[in-house]
Amino acid sequence: MKLRARLYPIESGRPVVVLNEEDAKDLGVYVTGRVRISHEERSINAIVDTTTSFVKEGEIAVFEEVRGILDVCEDCELTVAETTRLHSVEFIKKKMDGYTLNEHEIHTIIQDVVDNNLSNIELTAFVAAGYVKGYTMDEIVALTKAMVDTGQTIDFGDDIVDKHSVGGVAGNRTTMLVVPIAASAGLIIPKTSSRAITSPSGTADTMEVLAQVEFDIDGLKEIVNKTNGCIVWGGAVNLAPADDRIIRVEYPLSIDAEGHMLASVMAKKRSVGSDYIIIDIPVGRGTKVVSTERASDIAHKFIELGKRLGVAVECLITDGSSPIGSGIGPALEAKDVLYALDNQGPIDLIDKSLDLSGILLELSGKVVQGKGREVAEKILRSGKAKEKMKEIIEAQGGNPEVKPEDIEIAKKKMTIISEHKGRVRYIDNKLISAIARAAGAPRVKSAGLYLHTSIGDKIDVGDPLFTIYSTSKGRLKEASDLAYKLAPIRVGSIISDVIR
Amino acid sequence: MKLRARLYPIESGRPVVVLNEEDAKDLGVYVTGRVRISHEERSINAIVDTTTSFVKEGEIAVFEEVRGILDVCEDCELTVAETTRLHSVEFIKKKMDGYTLNEHEIHTIIQDVVDNNLSNIELTAFVAAGYVKGYTMDEIVALTKAMVDTGQTIDFGDDIVDKHSVGGVAGNRTTMLVVPIAASAGLIIPKTSSRAITSPSGTADTMEVLAQVEFDIDGLKEIVNKTNGCIVWGGAVNLAPADDRIIRVEYPLSIDAEGHMLASVMAKKRSVGSDYIIIDIPVGRGTKVVSTERASDIAHKFIELGKRLGVAVECLITDGSSPIGSGIGPALEAKDVLYALDNQGPIDLIDKSLDLSGILLELSGKVVQGKGREVAEKILRSGKAKEKMKEIIEAQGGNPEVKPEDIEIAKKKMTIISEHKGRVRYIDNKLISAIARAAGAPRVKSAGLYLHTSIGDKIDVGDPLFTIYSTSKGRLKEASDLAYKLAPIRVGSIISDVIR
Repeated sequence: MKLRARLYPIESGRPVVVLNEEDAKDLGVYVTGRVRISHEERSINAIVDTTTSFVKEGEIAVFEEVRGILDVCEDCELTVAETTRLHSVEFIKKKMDGYTLNEHEIHTIIQDVVDNNLSNIELTAFVAAGYVKGYTMDEIVALTKAMVDTGQTIDFGDDIVDKHSVGGVAGNRTTMLVVPIAASAGLIIPKTSSRAITSPSGTADTMEVLAQVEFDIDGLKEIVNKTNGCIVWGGAVNLAPADDRIIRVEYPLSIDAEGHMLASVMAKKRSVGSDYIIIDIPVGRGTKVVSTERASDIAHKFIELGKRLGVAVECLITDGSSPIGSGIGPALEAKDVLYALDNQGPIDLIDKSLDLSGILLELSGKVVQGKGREVAEKILRSGKAKEKMKEIIEAQGGNPEVKPEDIEIAKKKMTIISEHKGRVRYIDNKLISAIARAAGAPRVKSAGLYLHTSIGDKIDVGDPLFTIYSTSKGRLKEASDLAYKLAPIRVGSIISDVIR
Repeated sequence: MKLRARLYPIESGRPVVVLNEEDAKDLGVYVTGRVRISHEERSINAIVDTTTSFVKEGEIAVFEEVRGILDVCEDCELTVAETTRLHSVEFIKKKMDGYTLNEHEIHTIIQDVVDNNLSNIELTAFVAAGYVKGYTMDEIVALTKAMVDTGQTIDFGDDIVDKHSVGGVAGNRTTMLVVPIAASAGLIIPKTSSRAITSPSGTADTMEVLAQVEFDIDGLKEIVNKTNGCIVWGGAVNLAPADDRIIRVEYPLSIDAEGHMLASVMAKKRSVGSDYIIIDIPVGRGTKVVSTERASDIAHKFIELGKRLGVAVECLITDGSSPIGSGIGPALEAKDVLYALDNQGPIDLIDKSLDLSGILLELSGKVVQGKGREVAEKILRSGKAKEKMKEIIEAQGGNPEVKPEDIEIAKKKMTIISEHKGRVRYIDNKLISAIARAAGAPRVKSAGLYLHTSIGDKIDVGDPLFTIYSTSKGRLKEASDLAYKLAPIRVGSIISDVIR
């Protein structure tokens, strides 16, 4: 069928065209069917949407993606033909029907995910089926391999180490200490981190206060070859790109399918050739993993997955019952990190980072068992970690001489004080995060909040609990209203609920 | 947040706006999040898509649906605010997590389906979860009630009867005989039928050869009040509209979730107040239901569902091993029906229609047990059914005096002959349908094919098996090539497969 192109300067994120319903019927395609579109020497499979009015019979609405690939002009004649159902869709249906998928089937689906060949309906069916049915270890191994294969990869040789934290703990910026410590010890640690989606800051957001974080794969190589380490935003490097697409479906449904999570974490690590990986699984109020049983189950799966991929994995179940560090929000966290590198930082942040670094040093064989933490501590205390971080900051285009005091914090502030007397019983990660976001983090780097207390501290009525920082009066009010409403820090009472 | 409107004359089928990614981040919405948009006195919840380039910061792209509802002009200033997550999305997640849903939760979801409030991601997650997890009878009852409540309903009083056939049998146009027979007997049968999606004709397509089939609810009432029956397209009447939306997701995934199927069939019947319903479940090669065990299971669920809704349901498991009637395609089937009303039609079509009519007459109490088929046969033989059909055709704006010979069949034809000698072993519904579609049905009403044989017939080499009709030379060739390739009629050999 020949149709006349009508161009619309719209990006839809995938190749979509709109046909008049009558033409679509003639072609035998139904809503979210597919057609093969050809123009001169080029052709592409596009997803079909139909309309009764906005596109006339004999015309085809072409959006940005298709226009770019086929080099279409307004009024161009395009050849449109029905195309066969994607194999991926058969395999997705197979998963929905309760069968396990083999390596070939999973690879086919993931390739189509990366190539943006699936409609939202098809992609969602895949994600939902995986979430509802779960995946076998064989499937998770296949998912991981497929995610690696369909993205870019780097080879830095041997002794590549990496770390990952399962989310949910506010302020948990251990990466920014573990990377310089490990790199100082001679390990190679090409760390890619995420930006915040629902939290007040991701490690990439915090690092961005000190240096650039958006590099392509060559940029990443250059930094790591120079300094042995890096802390960059994973989103800019094309590692395991299927993950992003899957998350875009999971997010609006508030789901985080375990199989996808395991596969995507390991795929990102394998894409940079990591041989030794530690995974921090915090458990506590408001974290992703809510019980130690669940954490232990995930840990065993990570380790098994590592074995199957030829990677040594160790998992650490950590206390995630309250935020780590004092600052929450990109700049406030960056400040904490700089203080910590000067050995003046929040004690809990330093402690956790040394624990993680020690275990990573031991796992990699760089340091004998039982001596890891000691060596890590020496590297930090001696200032070597700080020197290494300066190198990394410089390699990433930042100012290596930046001091904690240089970090700019939002000027408008309000301190929330305690209305009760007693010990601090808990500091809720989710509620603290919500308040920091209301103040403007992560979009406004200098916004967030600063905790004045930790769990177990003795508090009197009127003592400061935390200070909110914001660049806007309105946001400051919104955040402080929220703080009073949510009461994220519990002082005194140990009764968490009364059931009558 | 105030944003400037940019209008695009695009129908997206639901209220969608596009924001610049930076504005979306500021608002705290992510892809397929939602915003509340206000303009003067009006406001609406819209689904958000984001872009980095096609919409500038400070602007908002507005498509047809939102423009119409809010009465927006180019450059208008709109107020855009984050909105809370829909309750439906929580309930969908609950279903994905394996919990059963209560009546309130199901009603909330179905209302949002009908109101087009769900994104494709959310709707697909709902459909996929229902397919993968299945539904309890309580859930199916709630689904049915919700589908009825969210659409239009009619009340014709008592003694309303109805029939439904589960799909898959080519040429199965019993409705067009059962409706006039039942109406002649004094029953009220407000029948809504479907158009073909994947088949060469739906009952609505075939009826459309004889009369109009697109009426709104008032039109339907008028016809039924005049004649006691009707045969109209369900899609034009706003009965249980959730069904259509759900099918639009199921179709591209080739799924037909049992729970939705049961609920949607019963909801369409309940919307017109049916008290007595018979359901034809054909089992055989290429039908929807592939085993008698499965058919029996579905039958028991239909009956249970009927009990719960206060409706008498009887299910008939029928032989669906080959097409019913000789003509396949709208005009060829309409011709069969007219011959059958003249008592000259294909014997299998007449037989099945009399069986169904007889059972319906008995179920409704109009005729004593055991006498139904006899009464139905009298109505047909006496010409009363034909007279009633003429009334219905006239009430639906057709020519009541139409003769079978008047029906126009496509001029270009080709007869496929047997290459084997022996008895006809099977006639595959799916393959026959594919050939009729290739010939142009259902879009070209006069296209399709005509079967010259039935199962069990003795055939010689060179005997005609079927004739393909098409209005286009190209399509005729395509259909006959397909006929040779698919060999839909097996003659002779009783070996269906050799396993070595």
